[in-house]
Amino acid sequence: MTPERFTRIDQMLQHRQTDLTVCMEKVHKLHNLAAIVRTCDAVGISEVHAIWDHPKMRLSGHTATGSQNWVQVKAHDSITDAIKVMKAQGMQVIATNLSDTAVDFRQIDYTKPTAILMGQEKDGITAEALALADQDVIIPMVGMCQSLNVSVATALMLYEAQRQRELAGMYQPKTDHIEKQERDRIMFEG
Amino acid sequence: MTPERFTRIDQMLQHRQTDLTVCMEKVHKLHNLAAIVRTCDAVGISEVHAIWDHPKMRLSGHTATGSQNWVQVKAHDSITDAIKVMKAQGMQVIATNLSDTAVDFRQIDYTKPTAILMGQEKDGITAEALALADQDVIIPMVGMCQSLNVSVATALMLYEAQRQRELAGMYQPKTDHIEKQERDRIMFEG
Ligand SMILES: C[S@@+](CC[C@H](N)C(=O)[O-])C[C@H]1O[C@@H](n2cnc3c(N)ncnc32)[C@H](O)[C@@H]1O
Ligand SMILES: C[S@@+](CC[C@H](N)C(=O)[O-])C[C@H]1O[C@@H](n2cnc3c(N)ncnc32)[C@H](O)[C@@H]1O
Repeated sequence: MTPERFTRIDQMLQHRQTDLTVCMEKVHKLHNLAAIVRTCDAVGISEVHAIWDHPKMRLSGHTATGSQNWVQVKAHDSITDAIKVMKAQGMQVIATNLSDTAVDFRQIDYTKPTAILMGQEKDGITAEALALADQDVIIPMVGMCQSLNVSVATALMLYEAQRQRELAGMYQPKTDHIEKQERDRIMFEG
Repeated sequence: MTPERFTRIDQMLQHRQTDLTVCMEKVHKLHNLAAIVRTCDAVGISEVHAIWDHPKMRLSGHTATGSQNWVQVKAHDSITDAIKVMKAQGMQVIATNLSDTAVDFRQIDYTKPTAILMGQEKDGITAEALALADQDVIIPMVGMCQSLNVSVATALMLYEAQRQRELAGMYQPKTDHIEKQERDRIMFEG
Protein backbone atom coordinates (compact mmCIF):
# COMPACT_ATOMS: atom_id res chain seq x y z
CA MET A 1 0.00 0.00 0.00
CA THR A 2 1.31 3.45 -0.92
CA PRO A 3 1.59 6.06 1.85
CA GLU A 4 -0.98 8.18 -0.01
CA ARG A 5 -3.48 5.39 0.02
CA PHE A 6 -2.80 4.66 3.67
CA THR A 7 -3.45 8.31 4.53
CA ARG A 8 -6.63 8.31 2.47
CA ILE A 9 -8.06 5.27 4.22
CA ASP A 10 -6.93 6.56 7.59
CA GLN A 11 -8.72 9.87 6.94
CA MET A 12 -11.83 8.03 5.91
CA LEU A 13 -11.81 5.95 9.08
CA GLN A 14 -11.40 9.04 11.24
CA HIS A 15 -14.67 10.45 9.92
CA ARG A 16 -16.78 7.33 10.09
CA GLN A 17 -20.18 7.68 11.77
CA THR A 18 -20.53 4.28 13.41
CA ASP A 19 -23.88 5.14 15.02
CA LEU A 20 -25.68 6.04 11.79
CA THR A 21 -27.04 3.47 9.36
CA VAL A 22 -29.55 2.73 6.63
CA CYS A 23 -31.80 -0.31 6.30
CA MET A 24 -33.10 -1.07 2.82
CA GLU A 25 -36.29 -3.10 2.85
CA LYS A 26 -36.43 -5.01 -0.45
CA VAL A 27 -34.90 -2.23 -2.52
CA HIS A 28 -34.07 -4.24 -5.62
CA LYS A 29 -32.90 -2.11 -8.53
CA LEU A 30 -29.16 -2.39 -8.77
CA HIS A 31 -28.60 1.23 -9.75
CA ASN A 32 -30.52 2.31 -6.66
CA LEU A 33 -28.55 -0.03 -4.40
CA ALA A 34 -25.29 1.22 -5.88
CA ALA A 35 -26.25 4.89 -5.49
CA ILE A 36 -27.37 4.34 -1.89
CA VAL A 37 -24.18 2.58 -0.83
CA ARG A 38 -22.12 5.28 -2.55
CA THR A 39 -23.95 8.00 -0.62
CA CYS A 40 -23.49 6.05 2.62
CA ASP A 41 -19.76 6.00 1.95
CA ALA A 42 -19.81 9.74 1.29
CA VAL A 43 -21.35 10.60 4.67
CA GLY A 44 -19.14 8.12 6.52
CA ILE A 45 -21.43 5.15 7.11
CA SER A 46 -19.58 1.87 7.47
CA GLU A 47 -22.40 -0.65 7.62
CA VAL A 48 -25.85 -0.81 6.03
CA HIS A 49 -28.60 -3.37 6.40
CA ALA A 50 -30.68 -5.04 3.72
CA ILE A 51 -33.59 -7.42 3.44
CA TRP A 52 -34.04 -9.08 0.07
CA ASP A 53 -36.86 -11.23 -1.25
CA HIS A 54 -34.73 -13.45 -3.41
CA PRO A 55 -31.53 -15.12 -2.24
CA LYS A 56 -30.08 -14.20 -5.62
CA MET A 57 -30.26 -10.49 -4.79
CA ARG A 58 -27.90 -10.94 -1.91
CA LEU A 59 -25.21 -11.85 -4.32
CA SER A 60 -25.85 -9.32 -7.03
CA GLY A 61 -26.48 -6.68 -4.38
CA HIS A 62 -23.05 -7.32 -3.01
CA THR A 63 -21.45 -7.24 -6.42
CA ALA A 64 -23.05 -3.99 -7.42
CA THR A 65 -22.27 -2.14 -4.30
CA GLY A 66 -19.84 -3.70 -1.93
CA SER A 67 -17.08 -4.62 -4.29
CA GLN A 68 -14.60 -2.41 -2.55
CA ASN A 69 -15.63 -3.39 0.93
CA TRP A 70 -15.69 0.18 2.20
CA VAL A 71 -19.31 -0.12 3.18
CA GLN A 72 -20.46 -3.49 4.49
CA VAL A 73 -23.89 -4.65 3.39
CA LYS A 74 -25.40 -6.89 6.06
CA ALA A 75 -28.24 -9.08 4.81
CA HIS A 76 -31.03 -10.14 7.17
CA ASP A 77 -33.73 -12.78 6.75
CA SER A 78 -36.50 -10.51 7.90
CA ILE A 79 -37.12 -6.87 8.75
CA THR A 80 -37.88 -7.95 12.32
CA ASP A 81 -34.38 -9.41 12.62
CA ALA A 82 -32.81 -6.29 11.14
CA ILE A 83 -34.65 -3.90 13.45
CA LYS A 84 -33.82 -6.07 16.44
CA VAL A 85 -30.12 -5.72 15.63
CA MET A 86 -30.33 -1.95 15.16
CA LYS A 87 -32.35 -1.41 18.35
CA ALA A 88 -29.85 -3.55 20.26
CA GLN A 89 -27.26 -0.99 19.13
CA GLY A 90 -29.31 1.73 20.83
CA MET A 91 -30.54 3.27 17.61
CA GLN A 92 -33.78 5.16 17.06
CA VAL A 93 -35.50 3.67 14.00
CA ILE A 94 -36.84 6.27 11.56
CA ALA A 95 -39.13 5.09 8.73
CA THR A 96 -39.35 7.18 5.56
CA ASN A 97 -42.98 6.87 4.67
CA LEU A 98 -45.65 8.89 2.91
CA SER A 99 -48.18 8.64 5.76
CA ASP A 100 -50.42 11.01 7.68
CA THR A 101 -48.46 10.47 10.88
CA ALA A 102 -45.12 11.33 9.25
CA VAL A 103 -43.32 14.47 10.42
CA ASP A 104 -41.04 16.60 8.23
CA PHE A 105 -37.71 14.78 7.92
CA ARG A 106 -35.80 17.81 9.23
CA GLN A 107 -37.58 17.68 12.60
CA ILE A 108 -35.67 14.59 13.74
CA ASP A 109 -32.49 14.82 15.83
CA TYR A 110 -30.00 12.75 13.81
CA THR A 111 -27.13 13.37 16.20
CA LYS A 112 -28.65 10.50 18.21
CA PRO A 113 -27.73 6.96 17.13
CA THR A 114 -30.05 6.49 14.15
CA ALA A 115 -31.18 3.86 11.67
CA ILE A 116 -33.10 5.05 8.62
CA LEU A 117 -35.53 2.64 6.94
CA MET A 118 -35.98 2.90 3.18
CA GLY A 119 -38.75 1.10 1.32
CA GLN A 120 -39.09 -0.85 -1.87
CA GLU A 121 -39.30 1.02 -5.18
CA LYS A 122 -42.92 0.17 -5.81
CA ASP A 123 -44.53 -0.82 -2.52
CA GLY A 124 -42.62 1.25 0.02
CA ILE A 125 -42.05 0.10 3.60
CA THR A 126 -44.07 -2.89 4.88
CA ALA A 127 -46.68 -2.56 7.64
CA GLU A 128 -44.51 -4.88 9.71
CA ALA A 129 -41.58 -2.47 9.55
CA LEU A 130 -43.74 0.59 10.20
CA ALA A 131 -45.12 -1.01 13.35
CA LEU A 132 -41.59 -1.51 14.67
CA ALA A 133 -40.25 1.94 13.78
CA ASP A 134 -40.13 4.80 16.29
CA GLN A 135 -41.26 7.54 13.91
CA ASP A 136 -42.37 8.09 10.30
CA VAL A 137 -40.83 10.97 8.39
CA ILE A 138 -41.68 12.53 5.07
CA ILE A 139 -39.67 14.65 2.65
CA PRO A 140 -41.96 17.50 1.53
CA MET A 141 -43.06 17.52 -2.11
CA VAL A 142 -45.16 20.11 -3.96
CA GLY A 143 -45.37 18.49 -7.40
CA MET A 144 -47.51 15.95 -9.20
CA CYS A 145 -45.38 12.82 -8.63
CA GLN A 146 -46.34 10.67 -5.66
CA SER A 147 -42.83 9.99 -4.37
CA LEU A 148 -39.12 10.47 -4.92
CA ASN A 149 -36.70 7.89 -6.23
CA VAL A 150 -35.50 5.78 -3.28
CA SER A 151 -31.80 6.58 -3.70
CA VAL A 152 -32.65 10.28 -3.87
CA ALA A 153 -34.77 10.04 -0.71
CA THR A 154 -31.97 8.16 1.09
CA ALA A 155 -29.44 10.84 0.17
CA LEU A 156 -31.70 13.64 1.42
CA MET A 157 -32.09 11.85 4.75
CA LEU A 158 -28.37 11.19 5.07
CA TYR A 159 -27.25 14.69 4.21
CA GLU A 160 -29.72 16.15 6.71
CA ALA A 161 -28.02 13.89 9.26
CA GLN A 162 -24.61 15.02 7.94
CA ARG A 163 -25.63 18.69 8.29
CA GLN A 164 -26.75 18.25 11.89
CA ARG A 165 -23.75 16.12 12.82
CA GLU A 166 -21.33 18.53 11.19
CA LEU A 167 -22.82 21.39 13.23
CA ALA A 168 -22.58 19.25 16.38
CA GLY A 169 -18.87 18.63 15.74
CA MET A 170 -19.39 14.94 15.04
CA TYR A 171 -17.19 15.04 11.91
CA GLN A 172 -14.11 16.01 13.89
CA PRO A 173 -11.43 13.38 13.26
CA LYS A 174 -11.65 10.51 15.75
CA THR A 175 -9.50 7.45 16.30
CA ASP A 176 -11.12 5.61 19.18
CA HIS A 177 -14.46 4.75 17.57
CA ILE A 178 -13.36 1.86 15.39
CA GLU A 179 -11.82 -1.22 16.96
CA LYS A 180 -8.31 -2.17 15.99
CA GLN A 181 -9.42 -5.46 14.49
CA GLU A 182 -11.99 -3.80 12.20
CA ARG A 183 -9.46 -1.13 11.32
CA ASP A 184 -6.89 -3.72 10.28
CA ARG A 185 -9.45 -5.61 8.25
CA ILE A 186 -10.29 -2.49 6.28
CA MET A 187 -6.64 -1.53 5.82
CA PHE A 188 -5.79 -5.01 4.56
CA GLU A 189 -8.79 -5.86 2.45
CA GLY A 190 -9.36 -2.40 0.96
CA MET B 1 -61.13 16.62 -15.50
CA THR B 2 -62.42 15.76 -12.02
CA PRO B 3 -62.60 18.54 -9.40
CA GLU B 4 -59.99 16.64 -7.33
CA ARG B 5 -57.56 16.61 -10.20
CA PHE B 6 -58.19 20.27 -10.92
CA THR B 7 -57.44 21.15 -7.28
CA ARG B 8 -54.29 19.02 -7.34
CA ILE B 9 -52.89 20.73 -10.42
CA ASP B 10 -53.94 24.13 -9.13
CA GLN B 11 -52.08 23.46 -5.85
CA MET B 12 -49.02 22.35 -7.76
CA LEU B 13 -49.03 25.51 -9.86
CA GLN B 14 -49.35 27.70 -6.77
CA HIS B 15 -46.08 26.33 -5.43
CA ARG B 16 -44.01 26.45 -8.59
CA GLN B 17 -40.56 28.06 -8.32
CA THR B 18 -40.27 29.64 -11.73
CA ASP B 19 -36.87 31.20 -10.95
CA LEU B 20 -35.12 27.93 -10.07
CA THR B 21 -33.87 25.47 -12.66
CA VAL B 22 -31.41 22.68 -13.44
CA CYS B 23 -29.23 22.30 -16.51
CA MET B 24 -28.02 18.77 -17.28
CA GLU B 25 -24.87 18.73 -19.37
CA LYS B 26 -24.82 15.42 -21.25
CA VAL B 27 -26.35 13.39 -18.43
CA HIS B 28 -27.28 10.29 -20.41
CA LYS B 29 -28.45 7.43 -18.21
CA LEU B 30 -32.21 7.27 -18.41
CA HIS B 31 -32.71 6.30 -14.79
CA ASN B 32 -30.71 9.38 -13.76
CA LEU B 33 -32.68 11.66 -16.08
CA ALA B 34 -35.92 10.25 -14.75
CA ALA B 35 -34.90 10.64 -11.11
CA ILE B 36 -33.71 14.22 -11.71
CA VAL B 37 -36.92 15.33 -13.40
CA ARG B 38 -38.96 13.66 -10.67
CA THR B 39 -37.04 15.58 -7.99
CA CYS B 40 -37.49 18.82 -9.96
CA ASP B 41 -41.23 18.22 -9.93
CA ALA B 42 -41.11 17.59 -6.18
CA VAL B 43 -39.50 20.95 -5.38
CA GLY B 44 -41.72 22.82 -7.83
CA ILE B 45 -39.47 23.34 -10.85
CA SER B 46 -41.38 23.70 -14.09
CA GLU B 47 -38.61 23.79 -16.67
CA VAL B 48 -35.19 22.14 -16.89
CA HIS B 49 -32.49 22.42 -19.51
CA ALA B 50 -30.49 19.69 -21.20
CA ILE B 51 -27.63 19.34 -23.63
CA TRP B 52 -27.27 15.96 -25.28
CA ASP B 53 -24.53 14.55 -27.48
CA HIS B 54 -26.75 12.43 -29.65
CA PRO B 55 -29.95 13.67 -31.25
CA LYS B 56 -31.46 10.32 -30.26
CA MET B 57 -31.17 11.17 -26.58
CA ARG B 58 -33.51 14.09 -26.99
CA LEU B 59 -36.24 11.70 -27.84
CA SER B 60 -35.57 9.01 -25.30
CA GLY B 61 -34.91 11.68 -22.69
CA HIS B 62 -38.31 13.10 -23.31
CA THR B 63 -39.94 9.72 -23.16
CA ALA B 64 -38.34 8.71 -19.91
CA THR B 65 -39.00 11.87 -18.07
CA GLY B 66 -41.40 14.26 -19.61
CA SER B 67 -44.27 11.98 -20.47
CA GLN B 68 -46.65 13.79 -18.21
CA ASN B 69 -45.57 17.25 -19.23
CA TRP B 70 -45.41 18.52 -15.67
CA VAL B 71 -41.77 19.42 -16.04
CA GLN B 72 -40.68 20.68 -19.45
CA VAL B 73 -37.28 19.50 -20.67
CA LYS B 74 -35.78 22.13 -22.97
CA ALA B 75 -33.00 20.80 -25.20
CA HIS B 76 -30.18 23.12 -26.33
CA ASP B 77 -27.56 22.61 -29.02
CA SER B 78 -24.71 23.71 -26.80
CA ILE B 79 -24.00 24.58 -23.19
CA THR B 80 -23.20 28.14 -24.30
CA ASP B 81 -26.71 28.49 -25.69
CA ALA B 82 -28.24 27.06 -22.54
CA ILE B 83 -26.32 29.34 -20.21
CA LYS B 84 -27.14 32.35 -22.37
CA VAL B 85 -30.85 31.60 -21.93
CA MET B 86 -30.55 31.16 -18.17
CA LYS B 87 -28.48 34.30 -17.70
CA ALA B 88 -30.99 36.26 -19.78
CA GLN B 89 -33.54 35.19 -17.17
CA GLY B 90 -31.40 36.89 -14.52
CA MET B 91 -30.21 33.65 -12.97
CA GLN B 92 -26.94 33.04 -11.16
CA VAL B 93 -25.30 29.94 -12.65
CA ILE B 94 -23.96 27.48 -10.07
CA ALA B 95 -21.76 24.61 -11.27
CA THR B 96 -21.54 21.45 -9.17
CA ASN B 97 -17.94 20.47 -9.54
CA LEU B 98 -15.27 18.67 -7.56
CA SER B 99 -12.69 21.47 -7.88
CA ASP B 100 -10.37 23.37 -5.56
CA THR B 101 -12.27 26.60 -6.08
CA ALA B 102 -15.61 25.04 -5.15
CA VAL B 103 -17.33 26.25 -1.99
CA ASP B 104 -19.62 24.14 0.20
CA PHE B 105 -22.98 23.88 -1.55
CA ARG B 106 -24.80 25.25 1.52
CA GLN B 107 -22.98 28.59 1.33
CA ILE B 108 -24.92 29.74 -1.72
CA ASP B 109 -28.05 31.90 -1.46
CA TYR B 110 -30.61 29.92 -3.46
CA THR B 111 -33.43 32.36 -2.80
CA LYS B 112 -31.94 34.33 -5.72
CA PRO B 113 -32.94 33.25 -9.23
CA THR B 114 -30.69 30.22 -9.72
CA ALA B 115 -29.66 27.70 -12.37
CA ILE B 116 -27.79 24.61 -11.18
CA LEU B 117 -25.44 22.87 -13.65
CA MET B 118 -25.05 19.10 -13.37
CA GLY B 119 -22.35 17.17 -15.20
CA GLN B 120 -22.11 13.96 -17.14
CA GLU B 121 -21.94 10.66 -15.24
CA LYS B 122 -18.34 9.95 -16.18
CA ASP B 123 -16.69 13.20 -17.20
CA GLY B 124 -18.49 15.80 -15.12
CA ILE B 125 -19.03 19.37 -16.29
CA THR B 126 -17.04 20.60 -19.33
CA ALA B 127 -14.38 23.30 -19.06
CA GLU B 128 -16.54 25.41 -21.34
CA ALA B 129 -19.43 25.31 -18.88
CA LEU B 130 -17.22 25.94 -15.87
CA ALA B 131 -15.81 29.05 -17.51
CA LEU B 132 -19.31 30.46 -17.96
CA ALA B 133 -20.60 29.61 -14.49
CA ASP B 134 -20.60 32.13 -11.64
CA GLN B 135 -19.47 29.75 -8.90
CA ASP B 136 -18.42 26.12 -8.36
CA VAL B 137 -19.94 24.27 -5.42
CA ILE B 138 -19.14 20.92 -3.86
CA ILE B 139 -21.14 18.57 -1.68
CA PRO B 140 -18.82 17.43 1.13
CA MET B 141 -17.78 13.77 1.17
CA VAL B 142 -15.67 11.88 3.72
CA GLY B 143 -15.55 8.44 2.11
CA MET B 144 -13.49 6.60 -0.46
CA CYS B 145 -15.68 7.17 -3.54
CA GLN B 146 -14.72 10.12 -5.73
CA SER B 147 -18.20 11.47 -6.35
CA LEU B 148 -21.91 10.99 -5.79
CA ASN B 149 -24.41 9.72 -8.31
CA VAL B 150 -25.59 12.67 -10.41
CA SER B 151 -29.29 12.33 -9.55
CA VAL B 152 -28.37 12.17 -5.86
CA ALA B 153 -26.20 15.30 -6.17
CA THR B 154 -28.99 17.13 -8.00
CA ALA B 155 -31.48 16.28 -5.26
CA LEU B 156 -29.14 17.50 -2.53
CA MET B 157 -28.72 20.82 -4.34
CA LEU B 158 -32.45 21.21 -4.93
CA TYR B 159 -33.51 20.39 -1.39
CA GLU B 160 -30.97 22.85 0.00
CA ALA B 161 -32.66 25.42 -2.25
CA GLN B 162 -36.06 24.17 -1.05
CA ARG B 163 -34.97 24.52 2.59
CA GLN B 164 -33.80 28.10 2.11
CA ARG B 165 -36.84 29.07 0.04
CA GLU B 166 -39.23 27.50 2.52
CA LEU B 167 -37.63 29.54 5.32
CA ALA B 168 -37.87 32.66 3.17
CA GLY B 169 -41.61 32.11 2.63
CA MET B 170 -41.17 31.36 -1.06
CA TYR B 171 -43.42 28.30 -0.91
CA GLN B 172 -46.44 30.33 0.14
CA PRO B 173 -49.18 29.72 -2.44
CA LYS B 174 -48.99 32.21 -5.33
CA THR B 175 -51.18 32.78 -8.33
CA ASP B 176 -49.56 35.62 -10.23
CA HIS B 177 -46.27 33.95 -11.16
CA ILE B 178 -47.47 31.78 -14.03
CA GLU B 179 -49.04 33.35 -17.07
CA LYS B 180 -52.58 32.45 -17.93
CA GLN B 181 -51.57 30.92 -21.24
CA GLU B 182 -49.03 28.59 -19.62
CA ARG B 183 -51.51 27.77 -16.89
CA ASP B 184 -54.17 26.79 -19.41
CA ARG B 185 -51.67 24.68 -21.36
CA ILE B 186 -50.82 22.71 -18.24
CA MET B 187 -54.45 22.32 -17.20
CA PHE B 188 -55.39 21.05 -20.65
CA GLU B 189 -52.46 18.89 -21.57
CA GLY B 190 -51.82 17.39 -18.10
C1 LIG C 1 -40.69 5.14 -4.71
S1 LIG C 1 -40.92 5.19 -3.02
C2 LIG C 1 -42.24 4.03 -2.73
C3 LIG C 1 -43.56 4.66 -2.89
C4 LIG C 1 -44.68 3.77 -2.39
N1 LIG C 1 -45.71 3.77 -3.37
C5 LIG C 1 -45.17 4.28 -1.05
O1 LIG C 1 -46.27 4.83 -1.02
O2 LIG C 1 -44.48 4.14 -0.05
C6 LIG C 1 -39.58 4.21 -2.41
C7 LIG C 1 -39.08 4.63 -1.06
O3 LIG C 1 -38.44 5.89 -1.15
C8 LIG C 1 -38.64 6.62 0.05
N2 LIG C 1 -39.33 7.88 -0.29
C9 LIG C 1 -39.62 8.33 -1.55
N3 LIG C 1 -40.18 9.54 -1.49
C10 LIG C 1 -40.25 9.89 -0.18
C11 LIG C 1 -40.70 11.06 0.52
N4 LIG C 1 -41.19 12.12 -0.11
N5 LIG C 1 -40.61 11.06 1.87
C12 LIG C 1 -40.10 10.02 2.52
N6 LIG C 1 -39.65 8.91 1.91
C13 LIG C 1 -39.71 8.84 0.57
C14 LIG C 1 -39.39 5.71 0.98
O4 LIG C 1 -38.46 4.95 1.71
C15 LIG C 1 -40.13 4.81 0.00
O5 LIG C 1 -40.48 3.58 0.60
C1 LIG D 1 -20.46 11.12 -11.15
S1 LIG D 1 -20.18 12.84 -11.13
C2 LIG D 1 -18.87 13.08 -12.31
C3 LIG D 1 -17.54 12.89 -11.73
C4 LIG D 1 -16.43 13.37 -12.64
N1 LIG D 1 -15.41 12.37 -12.65
C5 LIG D 1 -15.89 14.70 -12.14
O1 LIG D 1 -14.77 14.73 -11.61
O2 LIG D 1 -16.58 15.71 -12.26
C6 LIG D 1 -21.53 13.46 -12.08
C7 LIG D 1 -21.99 14.83 -11.65
O3 LIG D 1 -22.61 14.75 -10.38
C8 LIG D 1 -22.38 15.95 -9.66
N2 LIG D 1 -21.66 15.61 -8.42
C9 LIG D 1 -21.38 14.37 -7.97
N3 LIG D 1 -20.80 14.41 -6.77
C10 LIG D 1 -20.69 15.71 -6.42
C11 LIG D 1 -20.20 16.42 -5.27
N4 LIG D 1 -19.70 15.79 -4.22
N5 LIG D 1 -20.26 17.76 -5.28
C12 LIG D 1 -20.78 18.42 -6.32
N6 LIG D 1 -21.27 17.82 -7.42
C13 LIG D 1 -21.25 16.48 -7.47
C14 LIG D 1 -21.62 16.87 -10.60
O4 LIG D 1 -22.56 17.61 -11.34
C15 LIG D 1 -20.92 15.88 -11.51
O5 LIG D 1 -20.58 16.44 -12.75
